Amino acid sequence: MSTQRHYEREFVRTFFTSPTAVKGEEDSAKMIRSAAGLRGLQAPDVWVPDNEDATAPSMRAEGVENIVEVVSENGADFPGEIHPRVVWHRDDPTTRHQGFQQIMEIADPDNGAVEHVDGFVIPEVGDVDDWKKADEALTIVENEHGLEEGSLSMSVIVESGEAELAMGELRAEMGKPSNNLERLFMLVDGEVDYTKDMRAMTPTGELPPWPELRHNTSRGASAAGLIAVDGPYDDIRDVEGYRERMEENRAKGMTGIWSLTPTQVEVANTAPLPPKEGRWLLRFDDREVDLREEDGRQVYDGDAVELEEEGEGTYVLEVGDEELELDADGLREELLDMTAYVPSMDDIVDSMEEFEAAKEAGRGAIAMTQSATLVIDGVEVDLDKDRMWDEATYQAAQTPITLFQDVHEHRPDQHEELEERYGADVVERATAVGN
Amino acid sequence: MSTQRHYEREFVRTFFTSPTAVKGEEDSAKMIRSAAGLRGLQAPDVWVPDNEDATAPSMRAEGVENIVEVVSENGADFPGEIHPRVVWHRDDPTTRHQGFQQIMEIADPDNGAVEHVDGFVIPEVGDVDDWKKADEALTIVENEHGLEEGSLSMSVIVESGEAELAMGELRAEMGKPSNNLERLFMLVDGEVDYTKDMRAMTPTGELPPWPELRHNTSRGASAAGLIAVDGPYDDIRDVEGYRERMEENRAKGMTGIWSLTPTQVEVANTAPLPPKEGRWLLRFDDREVDLREEDGRQVYDGDAVELEEEGEGTYVLEVGDEELELDADGLREELLDMTAYVPSMDDIVDSMEEFEAAKEAGRGAIAMTQSATLVIDGVEVDLDKDRMWDEATYQAAQTPITLFQDVHEHRPDQHEELEERYGADVVERATAVGN
Amino acid sequence: MSTQRHYEREFVRTFFTSPTAVKGEEDSAKMIRSAAGLRGLQAPDVWVPDNEDATAPSMRAEGVENIVEVVSENGADFPGEIHPRVVWHRDDPTTRHQGFQQIMEIADPDNGAVEHVDGFVIPEVGDVDDWKKADEALTIVENEHGLEEGSLSMSVIVESGEAELAMGELRAEMGKPSNNLERLFMLVDGEVDYTKDMRAMTPTGELPPWPELRHNTSRGASAAGLIAVDGPYDDIRDVEGYRERMEENRAKGMTGIWSLTPTQVEVANTAPLPPKEGRWLLRFDDREVDLREEDGRQVYDGDAVELEEEGEGTYVLEVGDEELELDADGLREELLDMTAYVPSMDDIVDSMEEFEAAKEAGRGAIAMTQSATLVIDGVEVDLDKDRMWDEATYQAAQTPITLFQDVHEHRPDQHEELEERYGADVVERATAVGN
Repeated sequence: MSTQRHYEREFVRTFFTSPTAVKGEEDSAKMIRSAAGLRGLQAPDVWVPDNEDATAPSMRAEGVENIVEVVSENGADFPGEIHPRVVWHRDDPTTRHQGFQQIMEIADPDNGAVEHVDGFVIPEVGDVDDWKKADEALTIVENEHGLEEGSLSMSVIVESGEAELAMGELRAEMGKPSNNLERLFMLVDGEVDYTKDMRAMTPTGELPPWPELRHNTSRGASAAGLIAVDGPYDDIRDVEGYRERMEENRAKGMTGIWSLTPTQVEVANTAPLPPKEGRWLLRFDDREVDLREEDGRQVYDGDAVELEEEGEGTYVLEVGDEELELDADGLREELLDMTAYVPSMDDIVDSMEEFEAAKEAGRGAIAMTQSATLVIDGVEVDLDKDRMWDEATYQAAQTPITLFQDVHEHRPDQHEELEERYGADVVERATAVGN
Repeated sequence: MSTQRHYEREFVRTFFTSPTAVKGEEDSAKMIRSAAGLRGLQAPDVWVPDNEDATAPSMRAEGVENIVEVVSENGADFPGEIHPRVVWHRDDPTTRHQGFQQIMEIADPDNGAVEHVDGFVIPEVGDVDDWKKADEALTIVENEHGLEEGSLSMSVIVESGEAELAMGELRAEMGKPSNNLERLFMLVDGEVDYTKDMRAMTPTGELPPWPELRHNTSRGASAAGLIAVDGPYDDIRDVEGYRERMEENRAKGMTGIWSLTPTQVEVANTAPLPPKEGRWLLRFDDREVDLREEDGRQVYDGDAVELEEEGEGTYVLEVGDEELELDADGLREELLDMTAYVPSMDDIVDSMEEFEAAKEAGRGAIAMTQSATLVIDGVEVDLDKDRMWDEATYQAAQTPITLFQDVHEHRPDQHEELEERYGADVVERATAVGN
Repeated sequence: MSTQRHYEREFVRTFFTSPTAVKGEEDSAKMIRSAAGLRGLQAPDVWVPDNEDATAPSMRAEGVENIVEVVSENGADFPGEIHPRVVWHRDDPTTRHQGFQQIMEIADPDNGAVEHVDGFVIPEVGDVDDWKKADEALTIVENEHGLEEGSLSMSVIVESGEAELAMGELRAEMGKPSNNLERLFMLVDGEVDYTKDMRAMTPTGELPPWPELRHNTSRGASAAGLIAVDGPYDDIRDVEGYRERMEENRAKGMTGIWSLTPTQVEVANTAPLPPKEGRWLLRFDDREVDLREEDGRQVYDGDAVELEEEGEGTYVLEVGDEELELDADGLREELLDMTAYVPSMDDIVDSMEEFEAAKEAGRGAIAMTQSATLVIDGVEVDLDKDRMWDEATYQAAQTPITLFQDVHEHRPDQHEELEERYGADVVERATAVGN
């Protein structure tokens, strides 16, 4: 039996939290009421009415009422999934009891919200025995309310060393008869509290990057058929930094990220999708710059790389400190090493279709070629970049397309924006390829 | 029940080893006698009379005698904790038996040293069953000598793949009735032997950085309520490199480090404490430079970033290859992204006090603002850097203060130097805040 | 009992795969026939006739026949080990049954190949229970064919999160009476499928670097007495990149790497051996450049570091943005920090011999000095670089020599090329030292 996913969504791009009750507002449910109205690229894949950290402790009783009211009214029309966060703490039974009571109330069918609630988010979990306590709370709630056992999913915030270690045990624990851990859905990193728990410090007070935590979360999700989501990116003005973080995350297999504002939601909903247009990169000295397309040629405008033709077919290429004298072939070789191509959605679909046709014709591996004319200091060089595709390359390249198809299937509210972005033809081919 | 710490010290900044017996000296105990006399910032939090690698095998019997003599004479006045290292090896029962005998002798109450010994350091441990053998050796010694079971702490040197893996199991193993692993205190990385055990090689023979080992040690310590300490930094001339290593470690939650000389002890005792004065940083191209304060303005003196005002409110900012044309607001935005502030001890205490007052007044989150006038190529730009503080931010920011309070409580011999460094007023406020 | 290695080879530098049956060729065994003829530095330590991904599914039945034929004919003379890869998948019993049948056929003594087969490579393994299924398949084959139980080694391709986690459990599982996991030999990363399994994406479609996977593989191998091997480096033109990857791997304790061509085999067979000649490095701004030797002096030819003598014993050293005014001693200190030496094979043997002599004479630690005259902008500076060697340094430095000795013992076909490279004298001393 293979590692199974128990839920419809195979990917979650965005995990958007809203305070459930805000003090001093006429309508304390203002924030979740407004979040419930989001549609299209501004609406998250997972919306989290947050009755824990985003809501003041004194407001959490009212927060539960607000969740019930807003979700029962608006849940049917909300385009993403709904996963309220309740309180919980591995070290405090009082908090766990409160969390249990909050779940019991929100999930009461008489209140009309639970039919729109996909699951609950449990923060501050500890080792796997603590995860089982939360799972048991959900089982009891389901039983009390006559809901099917396991019908409420459970997602956790990983914000302690214990929880990080627990992720290595999930696969073995999820099969055991005395729990319902198959209800697990997302593993979400919570770096602020994790930093506190690890007693880490940086000079500026910024969060450490925690690459190992993110790797372990992604691996834990992979091994147990779950979805890995990174924690909040605090500097909401810094869109470029948010994008870089997500690019790093995707290279780790972590496709989702927390979003704090509808603008962050929109950025994070689009970031994992392939670009509309392909582009060429030039790499040197551990840097990477985009080349500028001009009349079908790829132009480098910077000063760090210099190229000159010195008489008959001899070239001098300067990269930082280094100076190379090369003939035409040597130059091409060198520039092939220094360049890379970022394929567009259209390119990926093309390559997949081409490989599928080759496979159909009985060929297991084919070379894909990407051509460009590179221009540095006015000197033009034609490059052909070859890459061998075999079944494994094909399958690895398929991930962004599978993501796109998951989005397309479950988020009809985004169809219009996706067609605007890619054109109807590309969208249609991308939804069809590989199936 | 929460993850408990079993010892007074919550932090260990410095782990200082001294050879217990040196051949060819009139007084073979010379090194530990001199170490026993250290006071103030030159005295480590943990002093390790080292009867293993620092002492020649032929001198170790004499080393045990020296430990007994020097610790019984000077232990009462030594300001840090005392944790002798004995011999041990996961792969060699002879060595383990010798280690057991060394512990038995040093811990004999008739010898007068054990009342000043806080625990023992066990090197070269293997998987968790090997840790239990060392624990059992200590239990037998305690029983034979009429000491309370568990009264001697145990710290280990993690210098094998097995031991690295064992750190993931401590939390589950420490509760078991047939061991006394609750006596565990420090997890100390030993990168030289770890490198050998992993059969790693670098061209120059320098140690690999082993970031994953340090993460796993820090996480293991966090999950089991222990203290993580990094291994020796061999190049004792290179103070700057030592500081950088410690800054990296703190971002991983590893606050302590091995020290080989009293000078390294002094550097490592002060490195994790917040600075006396705050400072601004400018970041670009993966680099980070300190700005120079002049008349309350923050001046950048380098050439890598250039700024010019080109007519009415239009600015040109050059960073490496890139040139941006910006209006005043755009420039401010860009520079906000490029700058960061390193708060002083005083700043941190201020922010904590301010947040506590806000919380008292019923507010869960407040914005803290740090202002500066930045000067690049003579052009002045006023910046206001905002950061939202909530309960989680507050608690994460508290770590350096908790560390300071731990030091202040347990190291009265450092009070004078700390007051010289920060001023009596800041020290007093820092010891009071957050309690 | 120490962690035991169960096989002759302690190191594997090269893991070379060949398709077992190629469609459309007159001789479908062409590729493995040619691989079987490799000798010397072009012959891998481990040759893998690959009946999985490198061979089209429709050709795999023929692939088994080809393996049997080519290995029975040429296996006796092949200088490396032979480990065919069969099909397997953690999620698919049909594939596992095919793998079992392939092993049964290849290992049939009547076919004459098995006496030259050292073991089998099992791809796509999952958690440790899946590894046990493959182990059981081998046990049954051994039993059916009257081979000694455990005589066929098993190596796995780690290409899933489950398998990565399983590597942490091997040490505990290998001792259990109901399996023969002691037959394990190599842990080989398979980053293409791992990337797919982790659902990771990069903009260009290149593989993520997966540093944590490589660490965990190396650690798993270390803890269980196995050999860690990195996956394929796809860009076979990029020799420099391949070398850099191997240097990174060695710093993680992973000495072996997959090779896709005889040229890659040659590069990878020599890369982990110490260089013929030592060389000096200059480091600044996170970069590292080789110095050029000229008349016994080490010359820096670049522009990024500048040095000038300004009057009587005052020097100005410019490194990027920074300008330092130093006296002669300060300059020497600064340059000592900025330089490093890469020792030659001869240097390492010298140092080991010197340390052995010192130890013989009762000294536990000695200083080794490396001297050089550095030249920057015509200014000459004499440097003496000291490093303390103790037993641990000695043992860590020994790794490349132990590797060399392992190669020398098991690969007589490479003796001639090694003597050409190092000279007979250095080879002789290197094979003798440390034993």
